[in-house]
Amino acid sequence: MQDRLPLSGIRVLDLTQIYNGPYATFLMAMAGAEVIKIEPQGGEYLRRRDASSGAGMPFAMLNACKHSVSLNLKSKRGKEMFLELVKTADVVAENYAPGVMDRLGLGWDVLSEINPRLIFASGSGYGQEGAYQDLMAMDLTVQAMSGLMSVTGNPDGAPMKSGAAVCDFSGGIHLYGAIMTALYERITTNKGGRIDVAMIDTVYMMMASNIGMLFGARKDIPLRTGNRHGGLSLSPYSVYPTEDGHVSIICNNDKHWAALCVCMGREDLITDSRTATNRGRVENMQFVDDVIIEYTTRFKTNDIAEKLRLGKVPSAPVRPLPEVMKDEALHERGLLTKVNHPQYGEVSLPRSPLLLTRGAKQAEYRVNPEFAADNARIYGELGIGADELEALKAEGVI
Amino acid sequence: MQDRLPLSGIRVLDLTQIYNGPYATFLMAMAGAEVIKIEPQGGEYLRRRDASSGAGMPFAMLNACKHSVSLNLKSKRGKEMFLELVKTADVVAENYAPGVMDRLGLGWDVLSEINPRLIFASGSGYGQEGAYQDLMAMDLTVQAMSGLMSVTGNPDGAPMKSGAAVCDFSGGIHLYGAIMTALYERITTNKGGRIDVAMIDTVYMMMASNIGMLFGARKDIPLRTGNRHGGLSLSPYSVYPTEDGHVSIICNNDKHWAALCVCMGREDLITDSRTATNRGRVENMQFVDDVIIEYTTRFKTNDIAEKLRLGKVPSAPVRPLPEVMKDEALHERGLLTKVNHPQYGEVSLPRSPLLLTRGAKQAEYRVNPEFAADNARIYGELGIGADELEALKAEGVI
Repeated sequence: MQDRLPLSGIRVLDLTQIYNGPYATFLMAMAGAEVIKIEPQGGEYLRRRDASSGAGMPFAMLNACKHSVSLNLKSKRGKEMFLELVKTADVVAENYAPGVMDRLGLGWDVLSEINPRLIFASGSGYGQEGAYQDLMAMDLTVQAMSGLMSVTGNPDGAPMKSGAAVCDFSGGIHLYGAIMTALYERITTNKGGRIDVAMIDTVYMMMASNIGMLFGARKDIPLRTGNRHGGLSLSPYSVYPTEDGHVSIICNNDKHWAALCVCMGREDLITDSRTATNRGRVENMQFVDDVIIEYTTRFKTNDIAEKLRLGKVPSAPVRPLPEVMKDEALHERGLLTKVNHPQYGEVSLPRSPLLLTRGAKQAEYRVNPEFAADNARIYGELGIGADELEALKAEGVI
Repeated sequence: MQDRLPLSGIRVLDLTQIYNGPYATFLMAMAGAEVIKIEPQGGEYLRRRDASSGAGMPFAMLNACKHSVSLNLKSKRGKEMFLELVKTADVVAENYAPGVMDRLGLGWDVLSEINPRLIFASGSGYGQEGAYQDLMAMDLTVQAMSGLMSVTGNPDGAPMKSGAAVCDFSGGIHLYGAIMTALYERITTNKGGRIDVAMIDTVYMMMASNIGMLFGARKDIPLRTGNRHGGLSLSPYSVYPTEDGHVSIICNNDKHWAALCVCMGREDLITDSRTATNRGRVENMQFVDDVIIEYTTRFKTNDIAEKLRLGKVPSAPVRPLPEVMKDEALHERGLLTKVNHPQYGEVSLPRSPLLLTRGAKQAEYRVNPEFAADNARIYGELGIGADELEALKAEGVI
């Protein structure tokens, strides 16, 4: 029997799909909540992706420690069963397009009437109402709308998306934060609430540096600066080629620069008038970068990263994702855990990054549930027996 | 008098700096916590940045609704005063390099002895211990180490950083989530805890698609795919040039594709064997993209975005950041609020993206405090009067 976890006793009805919402409920499951994934016939969109193409792996990553029931929310009986479940729940989470829950007759007004302590949490691209509510939101389009793309890429190139699904996951973790805030508040008020987290809102602050620069005196700085500092006001600050890859280097002050000069065997540049101060280095940024490139290209990435680390220069190798996935340090920290997955064999999957030590622990890792694996138990609690379940299945309700 | 807020009554001693930690405590302040920013003489690092270069704006963005006291944690008397404050606090938040708090004699062991209900929350690049604990972590280097850069950029180009400080802010919002989880748990256990959130852990899941692709059968997909789909398994999916900018378009299914064909006046391509299915479009990706480019380049960005919206094609304009900053919809949602800032005049600054309606509201917006503005009030509560404050100032303690 596992210790009590922070969210033990909290029940989540999880209508979420793809990345945004499921990340929020994944974190809840890992913190001990009972997360009941309610899936349409055929399974959630992400579950239906072709496993052989690898597109199924994200489903395994995001749905560990959850339970699964099938339910057709468009059927009359399905709605009734959902409302019965709502009476037993603390949280309903969803990230359908805005308006879908209302059109199903399962909006906040209906659900809060049945359960005033319910927290109804909605994730979306642009919010539940307003100018953009009918814009279809995917990670790609929110990266475009939010300005994120406009500040990523080379100055002379096109705007560039982040390869990672930054907007989906930023939305998801903010949704988790909002739900926890509402759960905490409920202890005092004994009332639930309505949560409306929009991806576009959650990535605005990430552009703090870029926004700052737009208030500055210099008007010649491009919106995108490649791998250089966003305001071109720090040097060195970039990604430099090595013999077999790239290494990132950043000097926040003259001490860091001096340390780098020692590594490079260019102690002359510690006091050289062109490079002694950050102001000078910024004015001679190309010269500084050329000197560093002459140095970094002589070594393999891991070798130079180690040299710079020992030399106390802020730096890190640019690691290819496959190398990160095998990183033993991430296993030792407890983020990655080796599991035997029925579809994928032995793989390393992520746990929650919310590490709480000497207090709460995380749930024991269970791989994602089979589709509808928990129908009998969950619906059994509503008094629905095996025969009725068979009938409901035949009728297309579950 | 404002309504009770979700975190009313919670006191945070905020030792955080730059972006990562301050974002977590910003969200707490906006949710009603009393956040006391404890700053060294001269002010927090970010406060000391040159305001005229615009580099001061992020400080204003991140420190609204906080209070400020000065304190020299290296002085004996300063440590004593800090420990007195710890007795009154619910949360201590910090994002120094790992080990700094211990070396100051203010580590978890010491603080939890004094206040067993204390939540001690640490944000860092790579965690409080382990293989990378002496690697200096900034947003740039964590983007490199985490694999984020390796999946961003063009296939034939160098790895590319996200222009936004994705790692700093992802760390910050996860730190908030962890603190809320610990506060929630404390209600049951009456015990505090130690939180260890590492930026590198928090961005791993963001690469779910990229990780999935590495498990797929196709081995010819580059780690970076520019603005195309990360697994090159969806088409169209990219950013396309317009007469005056770019527009993002994504078709998740044949219905979306048909809608796009109608917009383009290319109904023939709905049934054309090369493009009728996603599989076909993927095989003929360059052809598909060329057809779309021929269409998009004939229009201005806003015009084509509107056409595609009306045509029900998932799409969005690639908006330059300055346009996003003026977006009235973000004001209407309540994310951006117009304030009169003593340094910057009338500006729009962000509130919390954690919108909780019909339940909790956010704090009334107050601009960032002047350095040490709350010394008299906070230290007065410890019984330190005006004369002693003067003496402490002269001695370099506050």
